[in-house]
Amino acid sequence: MSADRKPMIAVVGAGKCSKKLREMAAVVGKYIAEHGGVLVCGGLGGIMEGAARGAKEAGGVTIGILPSLYKEDANDYIDFPIPTGFGEARNVLVVRAADVVIAFPGKYGTLSEMAFALQAKKPVISISAWRLSEEIKQAESPEQAAELAMKYAEEILGVDKR
Amino acid sequence: MSADRKPMIAVVGAGKCSKKLREMAAVVGKYIAEHGGVLVCGGLGGIMEGAARGAKEAGGVTIGILPSLYKEDANDYIDFPIPTGFGEARNVLVVRAADVVIAFPGKYGTLSEMAFALQAKKPVISISAWRLSEEIKQAESPEQAAELAMKYAEEILGVDKR
Amino acid sequence: MSADRKPMIAVVGAGKCSKKLREMAAVVGKYIAEHGGVLVCGGLGGIMEGAARGAKEAGGVTIGILPSLYKEDANDYIDFPIPTGFGEARNVLVVRAADVVIAFPGKYGTLSEMAFALQAKKPVISISAWRLSEEIKQAESPEQAAELAMKYAEEILGVDKR
Amino acid sequence: MSADRKPMIAVVGAGKCSKKLREMAAVVGKYIAEHGGVLVCGGLGGIMEGAARGAKEAGGVTIGILPSLYKEDANDYIDFPIPTGFGEARNVLVVRAADVVIAFPGKYGTLSEMAFALQAKKPVISISAWRLSEEIKQAESPEQAAELAMKYAEEILGVDKR
Repeated sequence: MSADRKPMIAVVGAGKCSKKLREMAAVVGKYIAEHGGVLVCGGLGGIMEGAARGAKEAGGVTIGILPSLYKEDANDYIDFPIPTGFGEARNVLVVRAADVVIAFPGKYGTLSEMAFALQAKKPVISISAWRLSEEIKQAESPEQAAELAMKYAEEILGVDKR
Repeated sequence: MSADRKPMIAVVGAGKCSKKLREMAAVVGKYIAEHGGVLVCGGLGGIMEGAARGAKEAGGVTIGILPSLYKEDANDYIDFPIPTGFGEARNVLVVRAADVVIAFPGKYGTLSEMAFALQAKKPVISISAWRLSEEIKQAESPEQAAELAMKYAEEILGVDKR
Repeated sequence: MSADRKPMIAVVGAGKCSKKLREMAAVVGKYIAEHGGVLVCGGLGGIMEGAARGAKEAGGVTIGILPSLYKEDANDYIDFPIPTGFGEARNVLVVRAADVVIAFPGKYGTLSEMAFALQAKKPVISISAWRLSEEIKQAESPEQAAELAMKYAEEILGVDKR
Repeated sequence: MSADRKPMIAVVGAGKCSKKLREMAAVVGKYIAEHGGVLVCGGLGGIMEGAARGAKEAGGVTIGILPSLYKEDANDYIDFPIPTGFGEARNVLVVRAADVVIAFPGKYGTLSEMAFALQAKKPVISISAWRLSEEIKQAESPEQAAELAMKYAEEILGVDKR
């Protein structure tokens, strides 16, 4: 792995959501990009699109791990679409690609991503997402969520760099 | 698919559990087998082993979808080990193989299975498992869980048989 | 794994084929079933259907690991349909489920299965399939292919039973 | 997907190879990067490392889709490690991520990648790799392979951009 590889932060949440939530996701994406992180997501709409847009507006890099076989299914803000053809099973790949996961409200797909992240002992930061466990870090705002995520990721990268 | 294919019921839950829970899982496995169902599980210990043992003691058939590449990792009561080499990502395959899912207490792996089943709109019956949603059917006893599961599966198979 | 688990033999090949080839696949399926083996295949038509029909006519057990999410896509001779939703990527799961692979003529899907089997150092027996390597055993007839496959599988199971 | 997304070219081949082959792979990676493409590979050594090094030396972007769960397993020239935990089954994801595949000599893993690419009707360009089919384009040199790959990818992107 490149000695200066960047933190990879997954943002997960509903594929359809309110404008307000999408803007909150954009704030997260922007923060990640401004602080040298890479945005990973499921590549589709809603939270995923908001986060990717925020990252791109700040000049960042975005990776979208898609359920379908078709790169065209990625939202307009995905630099590197990774089509899997696995349907919702691609959720586990989103988590495996991430150093840290930020969860927004979502349904069972989001829940599966949080479950896999917790199972893999990756840090999970929630903005009003499923309340499952004390192990999930609750954030009060998108800025706080993004800041926490970058902090955890940098700790992990520090360990990796031994 | 064979015109008389059998209902396939997944039993999910912790890989390590109390003797009491393992016996409850065995009751479920026994009921499924006695009523013509096939037991599907993750193939390992704890709840999975209890359910598979119950099914085998009643002369039933058991399928274990394993995280590793090695059939030897299956518990002693698995007729057909399906090694995947996917680690915990095999959970989604357990759910996809099932017509109905019965969930016992478990940690995040179990949670991911419940999430995928709900996402796929498959019936999920809980015996003291994660309380996530009104869509999960709560059972008071292993017998009731197994009975409900077979009832739902037969409805699904009836539809399939049109 | 059950102490007396049965050899699991995958039969791979084209999803559409001549009647002659389908009958040859049926001979293989029949032999496997008569000698206590379990037939594993991709669950669809052509060679897969021929092999599954042969196994069922001899009272055997058949497992079909399907590309789609739908058990209804399995051919009429599949006892246990395992829908994956992975598309052609399910080929690797067919191979991982098998102790030994018998390959009939097929296109690139069949080729991928042979490649994965060879990569995993599983025995591959060919009946006029892709000529790739000296490591593939060439069979002159379906009977010989099935006989060889059962012999290899029993050796593997013997080793497993240590 | 971003309106100006870049061609994604997979380079596949042996994880261990001669210095000569590694340098040829580096020439391919360099050409791809210089012409605005993204290098996709399996993230490990040999051909994968050569191609990634070439791409990085020309200031390009590299994605490594890893068999393990560990980003640390990626070679030193991978910007974006995507750990899958799927073992050799990750090969299908390398192919699905690519617009075009360039194949160098390799063993059965490489063969599985060529098979999946041909099955998915993606262009495959060979530099002395497995001779399987008339559908594979034979290149005489790494430069020619990379040039052909970029040409095919741009045609595909042109179609996508309709």
